[in-house]
Amino acid sequence: MTQGKDRVVLAYSGGLDTSVAIGWIGEQTGMEVIAVAVDVGQGGEDLQVIRQRALDCGAVEAYVADAKEEFAADFCMPALKANALYQGAYPLVSAISRPLISKHLVRAARQFGATTVAHGCTGKGNDQVRFEVSITSMAPDLKTIAPVRDLALTRDVAIDYANRHHLPIETTKNNPFSIDQNVWGRAIETGFLEDLWNAPTKDVYNYTDDPTYPPLPDEVVLTFEKGVPVAIDGRPVTPLQAIQEMNRRAGAQGIGRIDIVEDRLVGIKSREVYEAPGAVALIAAHQELERVTIERELARFKRRVDERWGELVYDAQWFSPLKKSLDTFIESTQEYVSGEIRMSLHGGRATVTGRRSDASLYDFNLATYETGDSFDQSHSRGFIEIYGMTSKLATARDVRFGKGLEVGEGAL
Amino acid sequence: MTQGKDRVVLAYSGGLDTSVAIGWIGEQTGMEVIAVAVDVGQGGEDLQVIRQRALDCGAVEAYVADAKEEFAADFCMPALKANALYQGAYPLVSAISRPLISKHLVRAARQFGATTVAHGCTGKGNDQVRFEVSITSMAPDLKTIAPVRDLALTRDVAIDYANRHHLPIETTKNNPFSIDQNVWGRAIETGFLEDLWNAPTKDVYNYTDDPTYPPLPDEVVLTFEKGVPVAIDGRPVTPLQAIQEMNRRAGAQGIGRIDIVEDRLVGIKSREVYEAPGAVALIAAHQELERVTIERELARFKRRVDERWGELVYDAQWFSPLKKSLDTFIESTQEYVSGEIRMSLHGGRATVTGRRSDASLYDFNLATYETGDSFDQSHSRGFIEIYGMTSKLATARDVRFGKGLEVGEGAL
Amino acid sequence: MTQGKDRVVLAYSGGLDTSVAIGWIGEQTGMEVIAVAVDVGQGGEDLQVIRQRALDCGAVEAYVADAKEEFAADFCMPALKANALYQGAYPLVSAISRPLISKHLVRAARQFGATTVAHGCTGKGNDQVRFEVSITSMAPDLKTIAPVRDLALTRDVAIDYANRHHLPIETTKNNPFSIDQNVWGRAIETGFLEDLWNAPTKDVYNYTDDPTYPPLPDEVVLTFEKGVPVAIDGRPVTPLQAIQEMNRRAGAQGIGRIDIVEDRLVGIKSREVYEAPGAVALIAAHQELERVTIERELARFKRRVDERWGELVYDAQWFSPLKKSLDTFIESTQEYVSGEIRMSLHGGRATVTGRRSDASLYDFNLATYETGDSFDQSHSRGFIEIYGMTSKLATARDVRFGKGLEVGEGAL
Amino acid sequence: MTQGKDRVVLAYSGGLDTSVAIGWIGEQTGMEVIAVAVDVGQGGEDLQVIRQRALDCGAVEAYVADAKEEFAADFCMPALKANALYQGAYPLVSAISRPLISKHLVRAARQFGATTVAHGCTGKGNDQVRFEVSITSMAPDLKTIAPVRDLALTRDVAIDYANRHHLPIETTKNNPFSIDQNVWGRAIETGFLEDLWNAPTKDVYNYTDDPTYPPLPDEVVLTFEKGVPVAIDGRPVTPLQAIQEMNRRAGAQGIGRIDIVEDRLVGIKSREVYEAPGAVALIAAHQELERVTIERELARFKRRVDERWGELVYDAQWFSPLKKSLDTFIESTQEYVSGEIRMSLHGGRATVTGRRSDASLYDFNLATYETGDSFDQSHSRGFIEIYGMTSKLATARDVRFGKGLEVGEGAL
Repeated sequence: MTQGKDRVVLAYSGGLDTSVAIGWIGEQTGMEVIAVAVDVGQGGEDLQVIRQRALDCGAVEAYVADAKEEFAADFCMPALKANALYQGAYPLVSAISRPLISKHLVRAARQFGATTVAHGCTGKGNDQVRFEVSITSMAPDLKTIAPVRDLALTRDVAIDYANRHHLPIETTKNNPFSIDQNVWGRAIETGFLEDLWNAPTKDVYNYTDDPTYPPLPDEVVLTFEKGVPVAIDGRPVTPLQAIQEMNRRAGAQGIGRIDIVEDRLVGIKSREVYEAPGAVALIAAHQELERVTIERELARFKRRVDERWGELVYDAQWFSPLKKSLDTFIESTQEYVSGEIRMSLHGGRATVTGRRSDASLYDFNLATYETGDSFDQSHSRGFIEIYGMTSKLATARDVRFGKGLEVGEGAL
Repeated sequence: MTQGKDRVVLAYSGGLDTSVAIGWIGEQTGMEVIAVAVDVGQGGEDLQVIRQRALDCGAVEAYVADAKEEFAADFCMPALKANALYQGAYPLVSAISRPLISKHLVRAARQFGATTVAHGCTGKGNDQVRFEVSITSMAPDLKTIAPVRDLALTRDVAIDYANRHHLPIETTKNNPFSIDQNVWGRAIETGFLEDLWNAPTKDVYNYTDDPTYPPLPDEVVLTFEKGVPVAIDGRPVTPLQAIQEMNRRAGAQGIGRIDIVEDRLVGIKSREVYEAPGAVALIAAHQELERVTIERELARFKRRVDERWGELVYDAQWFSPLKKSLDTFIESTQEYVSGEIRMSLHGGRATVTGRRSDASLYDFNLATYETGDSFDQSHSRGFIEIYGMTSKLATARDVRFGKGLEVGEGAL
Repeated sequence: MTQGKDRVVLAYSGGLDTSVAIGWIGEQTGMEVIAVAVDVGQGGEDLQVIRQRALDCGAVEAYVADAKEEFAADFCMPALKANALYQGAYPLVSAISRPLISKHLVRAARQFGATTVAHGCTGKGNDQVRFEVSITSMAPDLKTIAPVRDLALTRDVAIDYANRHHLPIETTKNNPFSIDQNVWGRAIETGFLEDLWNAPTKDVYNYTDDPTYPPLPDEVVLTFEKGVPVAIDGRPVTPLQAIQEMNRRAGAQGIGRIDIVEDRLVGIKSREVYEAPGAVALIAAHQELERVTIERELARFKRRVDERWGELVYDAQWFSPLKKSLDTFIESTQEYVSGEIRMSLHGGRATVTGRRSDASLYDFNLATYETGDSFDQSHSRGFIEIYGMTSKLATARDVRFGKGLEVGEGAL
Repeated sequence: MTQGKDRVVLAYSGGLDTSVAIGWIGEQTGMEVIAVAVDVGQGGEDLQVIRQRALDCGAVEAYVADAKEEFAADFCMPALKANALYQGAYPLVSAISRPLISKHLVRAARQFGATTVAHGCTGKGNDQVRFEVSITSMAPDLKTIAPVRDLALTRDVAIDYANRHHLPIETTKNNPFSIDQNVWGRAIETGFLEDLWNAPTKDVYNYTDDPTYPPLPDEVVLTFEKGVPVAIDGRPVTPLQAIQEMNRRAGAQGIGRIDIVEDRLVGIKSREVYEAPGAVALIAAHQELERVTIERELARFKRRVDERWGELVYDAQWFSPLKKSLDTFIESTQEYVSGEIRMSLHGGRATVTGRRSDASLYDFNLATYETGDSFDQSHSRGFIEIYGMTSKLATARDVRFGKGLEVGEGAL
C-alpha cells in the first residue's frame, strides 16, 4: 500500500463505465483503486481477462471471484424456499446478486485495507441502495461512493475519458439495452420499453427462445430435499447445476419471460422486462411440493412471510435483522419439503403434472370419493355449526337492527 | 301450502341425486320439497326443462332463476378486484357460486314459507360448509339438511330409488368425473386424479382446448373502469359478457388450466383440477393495471388483504363481517384502476404486452434513463443513509458482540 | 403582495425560534413570511397575542386558526377508532397534530399565494418528515424549508438575533424540556431523560397528577356511537369535550403516563415520555366496547389494520393512499361499536367495570354455565375432530419419520 | 393390566367432578381408569393426598407430577417471549397449561398402556378443544372422551354419585366461582359476572390485593437474558422463581387484574376475569427491553407474529406446525433481549422507570439534542424527498382528476 493513500474497492464489471471509473475515482479523490469482479453467472469474458483489464486501466490490485456456486446455494436457494416473486412476478434477479457482490466487496476491502467501496450505479435505481445498505450492514465503518452519481461520471464523460487515456475497452458499441444478468435470471431496461404500451421485441431476450414456436414438450422430474432441488431426472445436481439445467431446458421452451411495471424502492414506478426460465420453473415446482407437504395454517402464514421476504430483499434489506429472522422461519417450514415433482415444459408453460413424497400430507383414504374412505362425515355437522357461529350471531344482530340481507324475490 | 306440513327448499341441479332427493327428503322427513335451480352459467339443460322435471319428481313448487348477470357482477367482479387465487392458484370457481345459490335458496325459502334448506353435498367437502354457513349467515333462523350426509342417500340408494319410482332421469350414464362448473370456471375431481402422480387426461377438460397445439395468437385489448372490464377491443361489455368472451378466446388458447393439491376447509388435502380461461386472463390483466395505477404501500397491503379475502371466501365466509369489511377496503383501492391492457393470448399464456391509463402513476420523466429526466439523484445519498440506519446500527452491535458477518477471503 | 417577491408560510408557535425565523428566513432567502399559528389545544397564549407578535416580528401576514374541534373530530377520533398506540404504547400525540397543522399551512399558502412552507423542526426528528410529507401529499407543487436544519438557525443564533433586533420575545427562560402538547396529549424530551436509566422526575408532568397519591376513585360512564364518545355520564359531549373532560378526570388520577424507548422514522431509537390521560382512558373504553360488539375474525384482522394504521401515521403517512384505504376499513368496523362503558378511574388505572350495548354480540343464553343454556354441546366433538385434523395429520407424519414428540416419563 | 380391559387416563384434579368421573367412566365404558394429576402451581392439596384419593375413588393407577419448573420454563417463558396477550389483554393462563397437562396425559397413557384420554371439561369451552387437539397432535392414535360432555356426568349426577358411593370428597361446598389457576395466573368465571354490567366483587380475587389501598411502592430490577428473566434485584432466579416472586410482589400491589369480554374458540363471546400479577409485570418489562434491543422492522413484524402466536395458543394449536415455526422466529429475535429493567410496582401499576443493556440499539450520540451529536441532519432532506415520493405522485394524480384535498379557508 502506498504510504498514506486511502484505498477504495470498486465493483468492476470489465465494461466501459467501471473501467473508466478506476482512473476517474483516482483523479477525483486521490484514492487507490482495487477492482473487484465477481462471477455470478453473468457469462461474458473470462475473469482473468477482466482482471488484466482492471490492472491495465490503473487498478492497484484486482480481486476476482467465481461465486456462482455460492450465489446459487446461499442466495438463489433461499429465494426458492421463499417462492420469491416480488409483486407476484419478479424473481429478484438483481436484488439477490447485489448482496453477494457486496459481500465480496467487503471481503476485498478488508483484504486490501480499503476504507471505501465504490459501485457503478446511478442515483435513481434500486441497486445503489442495495449495494450501500448491504455494505453498511456488513461493515458499518466502510464508506461508499458512486462515481456516476457522486462524481459526475456521465456516459459522455466516460467515452471521452476512455478515448483520451486509450483504455483497452470498446467505446463505440452502443447497446440499446441496459442489462443485468446472472444465473438466476436477466433484467432488461431500454428506451423503447419506457413507453408502457410498447411490447418487448424479440431482440430483448437472450435466456429464452420464443415460446410461440416451441420444440416438443420436455418432461422433467425434479427431486427436492428440504426445499432444495437435489436431482433432475434422477441425476444428482448441485443448486447451481439445477438452475443451469433448468435455465437451458425451460429457456428452450420460452418459459420465464416477465414484463411488468414495478414499484422501485426509490419511490417511482418503472417498466421492467425479465427472463428467468430456471427460477420460474423451479419456483412452480417448489410451490406445488409445498402444497403437498406443508400443513394448511403454516402454508397460509408462510405466504405472508414469503411476501415480506420478497419485499425486504427487493428493498435492499438482505442483511437486515428481520430478513434473518424470516429466514429462520422459512427454514423451519422446509423440513418436509422433500419429494418429486414432474413437470411438462412446453411453449412458455411449466406445468406440474405429478407429485410424490414420503412426507406428503395428502391422505388418499381421507380424500377419496370411493367407498370405504376413512373420513367420518358425521363430524361435519358439528363442525359447521360451531365454525359458522360467529357469522350467524353477527347476522342475527343485523336482522335485529333491520339490516339483514335483502333477499328480495328473483325466480323466473 | 298443505296445512301443517313443514317445507324445505332444495338446491336442485336436475341430475340424478337431487331428483331423487326430492322424494327421499319427503319420505324421510315428512316435509314438502320446493326445488330451486339457479343458472350460474353451468350450461346444460334449459331452466324450464329442469323446473318441469322437479315437479315431475314430486316437488310441490319449483323456483328457477337465471342468475348469470348477478353472478358475474356481484360475485365474479369482487373476486377479480381481489385478484382472488386461493393458494396462489385457484380462482374460487365453486367457492363464489355457493353463496349466490344460497342467496336464492333463502329467497325461495322466504317466498314459499320454508323452514329448512337442503343441498346435495357430501359430508367431506367444502361446499356443504359454504352452503350452510352462507345460509345461516343470511337467515340465522333457517335449518339446513344434506340428504347425502344426513339421510343416507348414497348413489346406490339413489339409482335404486329412481328406478323404483320411474323418475324421469337417466340413471345409467356413469360420468367418471365429479364436476362443478359456472361462468367463472370449471372444477373437476375424479378417481384417477386422486393419485397425485397421474397427469390429467385430455377428456378432463371442456372449457379449454389443448394449449400444446394452439391457433394463431389472439391479441385483445381490455378496458377497465374502477377494476371492472367495461370493453373488449373497444366494444362495450357487461361483466358477464367480458367473462364469456374471454372464456371463449382464452379457452381456445388453452389458457387457465390449473392442477393443484389444495387445503380443504375440512382439514384434508385434495387434488383438484380446474379450468378458468376467462378468470385467469382477466386477473392477469387486472393485476398489471393495478401495478400501474396503485401506489406502492397500498399495493403491498392490498396483497395481504387479497390473500385473506381469498382464504375467507374459500372458507365459506362470503357473508361474514370480515369479508364485508375487506370488500370496503378493496373497493377503495379500485378508484383509479382504470385504463387499457393489451394482452396476447396464445398457447396457454395470457401475456400483457401493453398498458395505458390516464390514472397511471408511472411518470416517464422520472423513470427514463434518457438525459433530461426529472429525478433529482442528489437526494439518494441522504435517503440511503437514513433508510439503512437501523440495519447499520444492528450490525454495529453484532460487531461489538463478535458476531459480525464473517467475510472471510475469497478471491481467485 | 410585494411585486415579484416569493412568499413562504411559516408554522409559527409564538416562541423564540419561530419568532426569529420570520426575520431569518426573510434575510436568508429574500422571501416574504406569513406566520401561521394553529390552536390544537396546546394552551398557552391567546391566538391574537400570537398573531400580533408575528406581525411585530416582521411577518407580512398572520393566519391564526382555532382548530381544536377539527383536531378532535377529524384526527383524534380516527386514532381512537384505530385504538392507535404505536409500539403498543404511544397514542400518536404529535403524529396526528402535524398533518392538521400542515393542512392549515397549505390553506394559508393558497390564500396568500405562497410557494413555500417552512417549519421549525430540526433535521433528526419525526416531525420534519411529517410536515414535509403531509404538505407534499396535499400540494405536490409546494416547496418546503426548515430554517433550523437548512438555514443554520441554531438556538445560539436565534438568541443573538432576537437580542440584536429587539424582538418582543423572552430569550432567557431556559426550559430544560422540549415539549409538544395538544388536546390528545403531551410529549416531553429532555437532557436527563436521554439517559435511559433515569426515571422521569415530577416536574416532567403537567397533564397528570401523581398517581401515587390519588383522590377517591372516579366512576365514569362513557356512551359511544359508531366508535365515537357522544356522552359522558349521560351528558352529551362533542369529541373535543369528551377528550377535555377525560383529560381532566383521568389526569387527576394520574392516568396515561407513558415512558418508552421508541423507534423513530429516521432510523434511531429515542427515549420519549408522554402524558395522554384522556386518550388512554378513551382507548381502553373503546377497545372493550369493540370486544363486545365486533365479530371475532373481524376483530382479529382489525388488530393488524390498527397496528399498520399506527405505524403509517407515526411514519408521516397521514395523507397516503394506504392510510385512506385503512380508514375505510376501520370505519366499516365501527358500525355497531355503540353502547356504554363504565370505568373506574383511580391511581393511574382506567379500569372497565361494566359494558352494555344493544349491538352486543355477547349472548347470555349461549355463554351462561347455568342450566338451560342454548349452546348445543353435542356439536363440539365434530368440531374438534375436524378443527384438529391438519395438526393431527402433520403429527402422524412426524411419527412416521421418527420425529414424534418425545413424551418421556415424568411421574413422581 | 387386567387382561382384555381397555384403559383410560383421566386428567384428575382431586375435586368432586373428576373424583366421581373415575368410577363413572368405569361404569359407563368398562375401561380401567388411571388418574393423572399435574402440579402447575395451582396450589391446594399435596400431590400425594390427591394420588391417594384417586386410588380410593377407584383408579387402578395414579400418576402425579410436579411440573411447575417445566411449566415455567417451557410454557410460560415462550409466552413471555411472545408478549402473549390474547386480544391485547389475556396472558393465556389456562391456554398454556392445557398443552402441558396433555403432555403428561400422553406420557401416562404410554406408560400405562391406555388407549383413551379423558378430561373434565364441558362441551362449550375452549379447554375441551385444547386438551383434545393437544393430545391428538402428540399422539394421533389416542382417543379422547369428556365425561361431562359425552357421558352425561352433570354436577347433580356427580353429587348424587359421590354420596351414594361414599367417595372421600366434599360435596356440599358450593363455590360460586369456576376457577382455573396456575403459576402464570388465575381465571375466574361465575354467575353474576355473566352480566356484563356487573363489576367483579372483592372475593373474586385471590392472587392480588386491592390496588386501591396499596402498600408503599416496590422497586424491582429484573435482569433478562435472551428474553428470559435470570435475576431479580441481582439475585439469580429460575423462570419459576421469577414468576413466583413477581406474583408475590406485583400481587401485593394489585397488579394484573384483567376483566374482559373475550372471543372463545367455539364461536361465542364470554366474560372472563383474570389475575396474573407476575405475568403482567414480566411482560411489561420484557416489552420495554425489546423496544431497546430489537431493530425497528424486526420489532414491527414480531408484533404480528406475537399476535398470531397468541391466537394460535388460545385456539388450542400449541403443538401445531405453525406454532412451532413461529417459535423459531421468536427465538431468533431474542438473541439480544438481554439487560436490566427497573420497575416501580405500585397500586396496580407496573411502571418501567429505567432500562440498560449492553445490547441496546439506543445510541446516545445519535439521539441526543445536545450539541456535538453524531446524527448528520443534512441527509434528512434527501430522505424525505424520496420517502414521500409515492404519496406525492398519488396526490398529483388526485389533483389531475380534480380530487385534490379540499383545503378551503379557515383562518380566524
